[in-house]
Amino acid sequence: MKIAIDAMGGDHAPEEIVKGVEMARDRYPELEFMLFGTESEVKPLIQSMDRLELIPTTEVIAMGDEPVKAMKEKQDSSLVQAANAVKEGKADALFSAGNTGALLSSAIFIVGRIRGVERPALATAFPAFGGPHREFVFMDLGANAENKPSHLYQYGILGTFYAESVMGISNPRVRLLNNGGEEDKGDDVHKAAHQLMKNTDAFNFLGNVEAREIMEGTADVVVADGFSGNATLKAIEGTALTMMGQIKEAIKGSGIRGILGALMLKPALKAMKHKMDFQENGGAVVLGVKAPVVKTHGSAKANAVANSMGQIQTMVEGKLVDKTAEFIKENADKLKVKKAAK
Amino acid sequence: MKIAIDAMGGDHAPEEIVKGVEMARDRYPELEFMLFGTESEVKPLIQSMDRLELIPTTEVIAMGDEPVKAMKEKQDSSLVQAANAVKEGKADALFSAGNTGALLSSAIFIVGRIRGVERPALATAFPAFGGPHREFVFMDLGANAENKPSHLYQYGILGTFYAESVMGISNPRVRLLNNGGEEDKGDDVHKAAHQLMKNTDAFNFLGNVEAREIMEGTADVVVADGFSGNATLKAIEGTALTMMGQIKEAIKGSGIRGILGALMLKPALKAMKHKMDFQENGGAVVLGVKAPVVKTHGSAKANAVANSMGQIQTMVEGKLVDKTAEFIKENADKLKVKKAAK
Repeated sequence: MKIAIDAMGGDHAPEEIVKGVEMARDRYPELEFMLFGTESEVKPLIQSMDRLELIPTTEVIAMGDEPVKAMKEKQDSSLVQAANAVKEGKADALFSAGNTGALLSSAIFIVGRIRGVERPALATAFPAFGGPHREFVFMDLGANAENKPSHLYQYGILGTFYAESVMGISNPRVRLLNNGGEEDKGDDVHKAAHQLMKNTDAFNFLGNVEAREIMEGTADVVVADGFSGNATLKAIEGTALTMMGQIKEAIKGSGIRGILGALMLKPALKAMKHKMDFQENGGAVVLGVKAPVVKTHGSAKANAVANSMGQIQTMVEGKLVDKTAEFIKENADKLKVKKAAK
Repeated sequence: MKIAIDAMGGDHAPEEIVKGVEMARDRYPELEFMLFGTESEVKPLIQSMDRLELIPTTEVIAMGDEPVKAMKEKQDSSLVQAANAVKEGKADALFSAGNTGALLSSAIFIVGRIRGVERPALATAFPAFGGPHREFVFMDLGANAENKPSHLYQYGILGTFYAESVMGISNPRVRLLNNGGEEDKGDDVHKAAHQLMKNTDAFNFLGNVEAREIMEGTADVVVADGFSGNATLKAIEGTALTMMGQIKEAIKGSGIRGILGALMLKPALKAMKHKMDFQENGGAVVLGVKAPVVKTHGSAKANAVANSMGQIQTMVEGKLVDKTAEFIKENADKLKVKKAAK
């Protein structure tokens, strides 16, 4: 199993990417890696060429580049060349910690959509504090600025396959992120999406969920439109960061008593921080394209990169893409019926 | 100054509402209160009739009632009668801890929109952890399931007046909640709203803000469409609750060391909890209607009710509604120009 890696994407690239890949090589004996990057920068960082290939590229897509433009114009960039390798069947999956938009564009336009999928989505495994499972799938996190009801309906299918194949959850519970529990809540898009999801047997739909409850573990797949999914994700991240910061401030401001208390509580607080720090365990995944495509956050260090490689291995071994494509092919009629209502 | 109060709305109504009103009477010597509610339930709770009037009503709008229907059909409900008192000029402001949708409907259809305001919005003062001010205005929190660009533009005006008149912030910094900092980010509604806001001199627009940063204090007014504003608010609340819960769990799980640490940290953690607990300091406000209308959360106890009365006093004294209406009247040309682009 071979993973194509954009070695130049990310705040700490290429150092932490290369380090993470070599860490993953030690952990996962089945994996092979194709590193795409600027030779003079990447080569000196590599400790051993075992199960690792360096493909020199001459361009780099920066974090601030306009995604589609960069993908089109920087043909010899590490990201575009890595995506090409997947397209041409030389690699089984694509990884980057760089420009999210450019990775999404490369996933959709180079790796390509699964036939029948209208809009691929960005998904991540999110911690569930309650409920029967440790994590749930949250999508779309911003691959789309606007979604139609039929997209949201399809996310129910894509998310279900991810929860089953990668997280090992059988008959995953799907909910729609909406601003109220009742089926008539939300704007026209969410009302129509609710009806499509309610009337399908393609997945196990349990109704709406509000952003306040999503971390309580009442769903294994939470489907959102890209705009509010993105806002919700960022609000959660921002709140968690703010609160951790406030706890630190409060400790500092309460003198010796606070410092002693903090020392005693350190293991407990660390455990919580670890659970909230879901980005360390793996990356966001582009669902609906013809190969696993994983994006780790820009500030990822080697360990997060290595964990993403493990996540990719699970996706490839679980045949996530094949299963999804097959289901969509076999149920084209269902999707077409739904299309009439979109 | 007289406040019309729905004594029957809220999880702890009428007990905590009456208690809160009497608490407010002690705190704010200028205030008078009109209590609307079921006589047999409310009367026995009242300690003194000083600056307080009880207007008996026969119906109650429940939390689960369909808002517009309930408002239309339950004409002798405590909420509708309280709203009527404001409409008829018998009271200066409206307060409820009950059904949010029914209060919004009553605010819009009974109290009435300020002439020129297309869509009133639900706003709240939110804690800022950083920046020059303690709080910022966050709106729309869900009065609308769908917004046009012109609505968001007007929210910049409504929010600016609230920040100035009630929070005492001069030349408030306005930002648009969007899924990226650049002006071309977001769906068509947000792109168009950004252009309207950027090209106005009606308020001090500083560009987009992402949900991750809204609590950092980089804006005094954060404008969102009702759907994603609602999702963001609920995500923040949910995360804060989850984290407080996790801290407790972590403490319990770490034995005597954790318990000792927690005891020492208690004042620090309590201070943080207090700062996050913004709902205790006042209610959400319906902006864009002809009188101050305040909604306290359903689970509000007497102290939160009393604090909301103080908030209403500031709004009335600050002449928030008059100032807003006057500005909109004098700048009708600006609003019309904007209308062409909506």
